[in-house]
Order: sequence, then C-alpha cells, then structure tokens
Amino acid sequence: MESILHSHYPWLSAPILIVAPMMKITMAPLAVAGSKAGGFGFLAGGFDLTSLADDLAEAARLLQDADISAPEGVLPIGVGFQNWGSDVRLAMAALEKHPPAAVWFFAPKRLADLLPWAREVRAVTGGRTKVWVQVGSVGQALEVAKTTRPDVLVLQGTDAGGHGLAHSASVISLVPEVVDALAGERIRIPVIAAGGICEGRAAAAALTLGASGVALGTRFLACQEATIAKGYQNEVVRVHDGGITTVRSNLYDVLRGIMGWPKVYDGRGVANRSYLDAQAGMSEEENKKRYEEEMQKGDEGWGAEGRMTTYAGTGVGLVRDVKPAEEIIKEISNDAMLALTKTVARYSEKHVAFGKFSR
Amino acid sequence: MESILHSHYPWLSAPILIVAPMMKITMAPLAVAGSKAGGFGFLAGGFDLTSLADDLAEAARLLQDADISAPEGVLPIGVGFQNWGSDVRLAMAALEKHPPAAVWFFAPKRLADLLPWAREVRAVTGGRTKVWVQVGSVGQALEVAKTTRPDVLVLQGTDAGGHGLAHSASVISLVPEVVDALAGERIRIPVIAAGGICEGRAAAAALTLGASGVALGTRFLACQEATIAKGYQNEVVRVHDGGITTVRSNLYDVLRGIMGWPKVYDGRGVANRSYLDAQAGMSEEENKKRYEEEMQKGDEGWGAEGRMTTYAGTGVGLVRDVKPAEEIIKEISNDAMLALTKTVARYSEKHVAFGKFSR
Repeated sequence: MESILHSHYPWLSAPILIVAPMMKITMAPLAVAGSKAGGFGFLAGGFDLTSLADDLAEAARLLQDADISAPEGVLPIGVGFQNWGSDVRLAMAALEKHPPAAVWFFAPKRLADLLPWAREVRAVTGGRTKVWVQVGSVGQALEVAKTTRPDVLVLQGTDAGGHGLAHSASVISLVPEVVDALAGERIRIPVIAAGGICEGRAAAAALTLGASGVALGTRFLACQEATIAKGYQNEVVRVHDGGITTVRSNLYDVLRGIMGWPKVYDGRGVANRSYLDAQAGMSEEENKKRYEEEMQKGDEGWGAEGRMTTYAGTGVGLVRDVKPAEEIIKEISNDAMLALTKTVARYSEKHVAFGKFSR
Repeated sequence: MESILHSHYPWLSAPILIVAPMMKITMAPLAVAGSKAGGFGFLAGGFDLTSLADDLAEAARLLQDADISAPEGVLPIGVGFQNWGSDVRLAMAALEKHPPAAVWFFAPKRLADLLPWAREVRAVTGGRTKVWVQVGSVGQALEVAKTTRPDVLVLQGTDAGGHGLAHSASVISLVPEVVDALAGERIRIPVIAAGGICEGRAAAAALTLGASGVALGTRFLACQEATIAKGYQNEVVRVHDGGITTVRSNLYDVLRGIMGWPKVYDGRGVANRSYLDAQAGMSEEENKKRYEEEMQKGDEGWGAEGRMTTYAGTGVGLVRDVKPAEEIIKEISNDAMLALTKTVARYSEKHVAFGKFSR
C-alpha cells in the first residue's frame, strides 16, 4: 500500500509521516515545512474557509523555490476541512486556483455529504487532488470506503488531541480491525493511523498494526513553524501523563462559541481551570465570560491555572521540546526504524530458539 | 528486560503472552492451559478469596503431569487479586500452600496498600512468588515502582475490557511514556502491555512500544478452557467495532451488587439492553430487578437485546472464533513475529533508499 502513496506523493520519505491539519495552527509555514522535510503537511482549512485561498497562495509562495518532487500542477501539501461547517464554493474556488496534492475531509454532518465534496474536488482539479477521509470507527471506515471511495482513510483513535469521535477505540484495535474489514470486502485503500502517536516507537507500532503511514498533531504543536501562542506551546511541553491530564469534552467549543459540530464529536485537551470550574458546577455563561477575559492575558492564559483551550492528545507527555519540523520528522523517522529493527532483533533469535511455534 | 522474565519464568515462549486474570473466567483450566502452551496463565482470585485455596489446589492437580520447566517449589501460573476487596489472610494461606510463580495486584484502595501485600507475599513464599502490579497511568507506575518495587508493571490502556481506570490513555502513548519515566529514574522493571490487544499485529505493536510482553483478556473469553457461559462467549464472537459497541461504565457493578471498587475505576463492556435502558433513564432499582430476572434465562441473557454483563475490550471485533488456549497463543505468537518481520521488510530498503535520515 505504501507504494501507492509514494507514487501519488513522490516527495515523501519512508516511513510516511503526516503533519495533521490543526485549525489555526497548521498554517502555510508548518504545512510547507512538513512537506519540505519529506513529510506531508496538511494546511488546516478548518470550517471557515474565507481565508483559504490566501493561505494557499502563501503556501505556494513558500514552496516556490523548494526542491520538492511534486507531481505536475499540484502543491506538495494537503488541505484539511471540517466539512460540517465548510462552504463548498469557497473550497472549490481556492482548490481550483492552487490544487493541493490531497484534501483531508473530516466530520461532515452525515457521511453521505462527502460524496458530492469528493466529486467536486476531483472535477475541479481534474483528479490531480487526491481525497483523504478521516474516520474513527470500523463502521465509518466501511461506509466511506464504499461510498466516497477515498484515496486514503485516516483512522483516528481516541487518544488524539482536538476533535474526534467522543466515543471510540484507540488505534491498537481500530487499525487492525479496519484493515481486516477492508480486506474482507476486497477494498484496497491505504490507511493512515492517528491518535496518541508523538514519537518513533508509537509510529513504528502503527506501521506494525497495518497502517501505511502516521499522522501527528500534538507533536507539531511544539514545532517552530506552528502558528501557535507561546503560552500554549509551553503548556504542551510542560504537561505529562496525558491519559490523566487530558480529557474529552465539548466545553471548549462552548467557550469559544463554536457551534455546529455534529453531536458525536468532542475534543481532547488539557483539563485546565475552565474544565475544572465547569466540573465544579460553574455556569456556561460565567465560564465563557472568564474565558473571554482570559483571552486578554496573552500567553498567561495557558498553564496549570489557565483557562485557554489547550487541545492535545494523550501523547503530550512525550513532547518535551520545541523543534523545527524537519528535526521532528527526521527524529521520528529514525526512531521508528530503530524501534522496529531493535524489536525484531530482540525476538528473531528467541522465537527461533523456542522454536516450537514457528511456521 | 525479556531476559529477566525468561529467567524467572523459564517455561515462557517468546514473545511473552499472558492470560490476564478475569474474575470467574480465568479459573484453573484456563490458567493452566495458558502456561502449558508457553504463555503465562493468571488464575483470577477476584476480591472474594474464599475459594482461592481450592482453585489453586485444582490448578496444582491439573499441572501434576505437565511438562513445564517451572522453578523449584512454585506453580507455573500466577494469581490475580482485586486488592480493594481481598482478605490478606485468606490470600496468604492459599499462597503458602501453593505458591504461584507470580501474583498480580490491581486496584487497591490506595496504592500504598500494596506495600504490605508485597512484603507478606515475599515473606510467605520466601521470595519465590514474584510481585506484578497493574497500573493505568504514568503517575501510578512511578509511585508503585518507587514504593512497592514490583518485579513487573502491567500497563493497562483504556481499550481494555473489564475494570480499569475510568479515565486513561491507551497503550500507544502510555507504554512509551512509562518506559521513559522509569529509565529517567534509573528503575529497571519490565513492563507488560494490556488493553485492546487481541491478535498478533497489536501484540507486535506493544513490543515495539517497549513492552516486554503482552497480556490478553478479551481474546481468551473465546477460549475453550475459559469458565464462561456460552451466551457470553457467543456475544464476544458476534460483536465487532468495539470502540463503538463497548462502553466504560460502573453500571454492571451496580447491577451485580458489587460495591467497593475505588471510584477511579469502572469497567468496559458491550453496551447491551441494561446500559441502553440506564441511558434512557431507567432507575437502578428497576434495572437491577430486570437483571436478576435475566439471570434466570441462561445463555439467552446475552445478545444484542441481552441484559447480562458482557465485559470486553475494544479489540472484541478481532475475536472471531472459539479456540483452545494453545492455538490462540500459537497463532498470536506467530502472527506477532510475522507482523514485525513484514513491517521491517517493508521499510528497511525504502528507508535506506530515501537514505537522507539514516543515522
């Protein structure tokens, strides 16, 4: 399956590492830096596409002198959409002007809505822009595979930071079950694993589970090219034990006044003062008022007692420094290969020695 | 780290596969079958230890003619405890008579309670019985490692079936973060991964994450030697897409009248009629009454419209048949090795070819 991806996106190194579209954070500088480093950067369109054409123009400028072997007529980056709130005309206008190598669809009101989106993208870009769809369950994966027929399925587990299914499995069972379900239907679509993967061992694990590549969000929050407040970034580096210190909730949508997410989604982030106050019974009105006051504090709005949204996955404790995208990709790539070869070395002899079960 | 385990438990094959203690299910036949197959079977003591001595005596009988290279004076199986409700005198009386190769502690009221438990086990068995402790977060792992100083830490992710932390990460981030945290404190304790692992690819992934072995529960629900109602077993084989069809809840403790679990724990199981009714507002009293009526139905109490407790992890969709423990262990062992070697083969050449990042 990797060979399909390498042929569509010839600049990608192996293993395939993807910078996930994070709203307002994976903007042109990070998306471009990701692809320049041999990864696949996805510019976040979010749900408000009024500035998408400008953002793509900026990416095109940043890519002008880059030495990237992109296919004819596309930018070697992708664009992510939160489909539930995205305007299809704004999207197509932007994609027509600057076709990216792929779009990444996520969270339509109904999965069936992705069909016309995919059709339009393929029509507007003459099929040059590939269609990726992010799902969070076996059922969603099969439905999308059979209807939208995407070029790639991104399988998001419950460890992921930011929005995802409120109720789902992690990649440890999701990825193999989807791989088997697709094989059972004789559907050949590469899958990408996402959720809780912040470093090389987890990337290697995802490949072992059957993924053809790995998407990372949280790791790139602590990236020099991310468009992110220093306070948020400091908090990502500070926080550890993400299974305990992060929570899934829709509170931060409420506080930010973002309505319209389909009910099955919420977001994982650090449980800071806003969350603790809500748990203790503070009204949404009061919490929102305090949130808006906190926004005036700048970087001081984040931290153990901060109130600002701090979306992050359970792998946040494995993010310990802020680095350029290229270093992050290089490190994870090498560490993943190292984890794989070391694990095989640990076992190959032993398994032969114990012998009785080898095929 | 594996070598420590192989030296303590010389009958174990590689990779190390463990039959998790599942209350009333991993009884003498399954625990013994697991160890006979080169795995490590943990007899479930649960929280009511009145029959533990008898269960261990049964295991000892079943092991009498077995060709297992157990260390002098111990049974080549383990015993699991739900420490919050376990009577330490009953435990020690049983362990003294039939020392197992290891005990597995879980869910004490306070982590500090494990210290006297560990001390007593080591005293009563002259150190022959090793101490394993199951935890679900980096914080718990470090605290237990520094105080109880167990021989093994079992790291349970949120995908696990049955009881576990109500709020935690999956193994994808939990295992590498704990491995790093222990290394940072220069503590050498092997870790075992648990939660969502039902087949070879996930087992391989767990080893890649840094685990020295893998514990499986849900897979062994569909095992011929499990002490389990056929209705429950059929349901495990029927259900798929476990991230969607299972839920974490303490409802089934309520319905079964099991009080006393520390508040931070709940259990993952199939969301059947009991759960749906509770969600729709049915009173605990009414739900409990119906549960007790359902218990009279035998195997009919399980199924899409059943009410009986059906604990299972998110990997339940990967469990497709009922097999002897030996076949399960053989299959997962081989599939794990296959997944590792195939993944390395997929990447080793490519990574060298792309080259620029190799160390």
